[in-house]
Amino acid sequence: MEYRFSSKVSQLKSSAVRDILKLTQGKDMISFAGGLPAEELFPVEAVRDAASRIFEGGSGALQYGLTEGYLPLREQICKRMAVKGMHVTPDEMILTTGSQQAIDLLVQVLTEPGDTILVERPTYLASLQVFAMHGLKVVAAESDENGIIPESAEELIRAHKPKLMYAVPTFGNPTGRVWSLERRKRMLELCRNNDMLVIEDDPYGDIKFDDEQFPSLFSLDGKAENNHVVYTSTFSKTVAPALRTGWAIGDSRVIRMVAKAKQAADLHSSTMDQQVLSQLLNRFDLDGHIALISNAYKERMLEMESYLRQSLSPEVSWVTPRGGMFLWVELPEGLDAEALLRCAVQKGVAFVPGSSFYAGSPMRNTARLNFTHNKGARTEMGVARLAEAIGEFTVRS
Amino acid sequence: MEYRFSSKVSQLKSSAVRDILKLTQGKDMISFAGGLPAEELFPVEAVRDAASRIFEGGSGALQYGLTEGYLPLREQICKRMAVKGMHVTPDEMILTTGSQQAIDLLVQVLTEPGDTILVERPTYLASLQVFAMHGLKVVAAESDENGIIPESAEELIRAHKPKLMYAVPTFGNPTGRVWSLERRKRMLELCRNNDMLVIEDDPYGDIKFDDEQFPSLFSLDGKAENNHVVYTSTFSKTVAPALRTGWAIGDSRVIRMVAKAKQAADLHSSTMDQQVLSQLLNRFDLDGHIALISNAYKERMLEMESYLRQSLSPEVSWVTPRGGMFLWVELPEGLDAEALLRCAVQKGVAFVPGSSFYAGSPMRNTARLNFTHNKGARTEMGVARLAEAIGEFTVRS
Repeated sequence: MEYRFSSKVSQLKSSAVRDILKLTQGKDMISFAGGLPAEELFPVEAVRDAASRIFEGGSGALQYGLTEGYLPLREQICKRMAVKGMHVTPDEMILTTGSQQAIDLLVQVLTEPGDTILVERPTYLASLQVFAMHGLKVVAAESDENGIIPESAEELIRAHKPKLMYAVPTFGNPTGRVWSLERRKRMLELCRNNDMLVIEDDPYGDIKFDDEQFPSLFSLDGKAENNHVVYTSTFSKTVAPALRTGWAIGDSRVIRMVAKAKQAADLHSSTMDQQVLSQLLNRFDLDGHIALISNAYKERMLEMESYLRQSLSPEVSWVTPRGGMFLWVELPEGLDAEALLRCAVQKGVAFVPGSSFYAGSPMRNTARLNFTHNKGARTEMGVARLAEAIGEFTVRS
Repeated sequence: MEYRFSSKVSQLKSSAVRDILKLTQGKDMISFAGGLPAEELFPVEAVRDAASRIFEGGSGALQYGLTEGYLPLREQICKRMAVKGMHVTPDEMILTTGSQQAIDLLVQVLTEPGDTILVERPTYLASLQVFAMHGLKVVAAESDENGIIPESAEELIRAHKPKLMYAVPTFGNPTGRVWSLERRKRMLELCRNNDMLVIEDDPYGDIKFDDEQFPSLFSLDGKAENNHVVYTSTFSKTVAPALRTGWAIGDSRVIRMVAKAKQAADLHSSTMDQQVLSQLLNRFDLDGHIALISNAYKERMLEMESYLRQSLSPEVSWVTPRGGMFLWVELPEGLDAEALLRCAVQKGVAFVPGSSFYAGSPMRNTARLNFTHNKGARTEMGVARLAEAIGEFTVRS
């Protein structure tokens, strides 16, 4: 049988991270590749306890649920959103299988194949896969340590009339960068003036290493009704990824359309997970836990930085992240991080070549290092191996 | 802000079942509408016990998982599939958020907008929504109590050259019909000869009311490699819907493509749910449980049938289902079940008008009654209300 696959899926690149993870299976490999939270910090007892309580209301806990998600959990998330200046009702929220699904459904609901979407350069790999899967044209505005550069975005908007912007303004993936308040306001204005809707993806905003608050684009625009922004987030980094629960908030008309698309996509996400999270929020100090993991991740980041400084030549540079899970490294000019990776894997260390995060022509001398999943001697050894690979590779190339 | 929605989602009909469930909220409504399993039969203790054991291997249980799904569960499902004559390896299987997601991803992977898909007339409502969402043209072959009519299918194949067939050959939704062995073989041959891939959706196959075995189209075609069939099923009806775990099996090339699409769609489904199911299968007699619910459902079906026979005129007809969850009723000619529903809801009973299950021109005098979610006095009262509505409506119209 000759299987004929759709052109969309045929041209989809397999994730570099996944391919690397396959390479690294079974070896003594130190991986800075995946965006994995630290397992030893998962609130296992609280999750176990919450899971034991979901049947208190009877066996209905195992029945089909609403496409929009478990109502008590939506109410609890509404309260958490309000603290961040986002005032929404449960009708203005839908629960999804991680925030990844929210992005996928929003794209299905808001675009036609051939539409253009504006992103930051570089941007989240798996969002680029969504855009490719649904036939979007991607244009990428330049960015620096203060986030996307409005002038670059403006030029692209003029030339390409994008219908949407996709943005990770706070501790972006892969760069860890934060958009300044000024740029947030400027970009929002640009999108408003050009009738562009914004998908604001915020999986990392809670993982902060200092006290500065970064208001979401959503909160800058106002209440949910008529908001130019649909905001997405997730419990994957703050509680645990296995529970696969993300959410989107926005104008109720948008949320209703997302629900229609979600009905076709999977009827609804796991209500087991949603009920566990709801029970967990009833008793567990999630904000205390977020402070705890943020401190731990900051420590790991500083540790990685110090090893990088010790081991690498000053030609390798990065901006110290103020939150999130990633350190974005610029390697000496001319060095191809994809080639470097093959060499690094031989030495027992993995990372994600920066090229994966670009739509169009990539900066090849970039790499994303995750600092949350390793610590201490493992991080030290990983960085040493990486330094060895870079040294060898620089000589070779 | 004026939101511009994609043409696909704009033209998507909201599910009749959902709209009805909204109508029925808060009222003393007896619903034969939803395809809901009986809550009081859910294996709550076994699920609770299984959930308590998923952390035995440590906190890694809460980490990100493979897109293809939790490997031990895939191995367990492989064993269960083998008993049904489907011999596959874990590489030939992917776990999804219910079998609904498997259908959605298969369509994304195997079709381009504008492609034609062949279905049985009538067929599963939410699969029609998937086809609409992805721009497919649907052609529907006639069927009778022995399933799809090959001559009707052949004519459509000749005229429309469909790329795929979607089929629920065993206890179909909405009709509850079973395809005879002869028709299974004939349809498989037709699809093979016309280079059509088959999506065989089998959510109900385990819920059997007699001892006859119905081999899957997949098993009739042979092993997974080069199979013309991709088979999907789910634990939603046999264990519980809240755990949202379905699967697809097929040639590993198809499964790999589905995994690529799933990575963009949601990275992976809940591994909490998958681990709970895996632990459950380790200790719980699922086959014994399936026998138990099948017996209970058979009893409920017979009960509903006897009330229908008592209360309704002989102009209302149906074929006694041999399994599944639905009783498909033909009402007197000229009676519009959508109009009847509005009247029935006033009397406190709901069902799904058959028109929801048709691509193209529907048979308006049909209705789907679920018999698994009510029993005894509730079923009796529901049928009495339905009879009253039909009586009144027949007089009126």
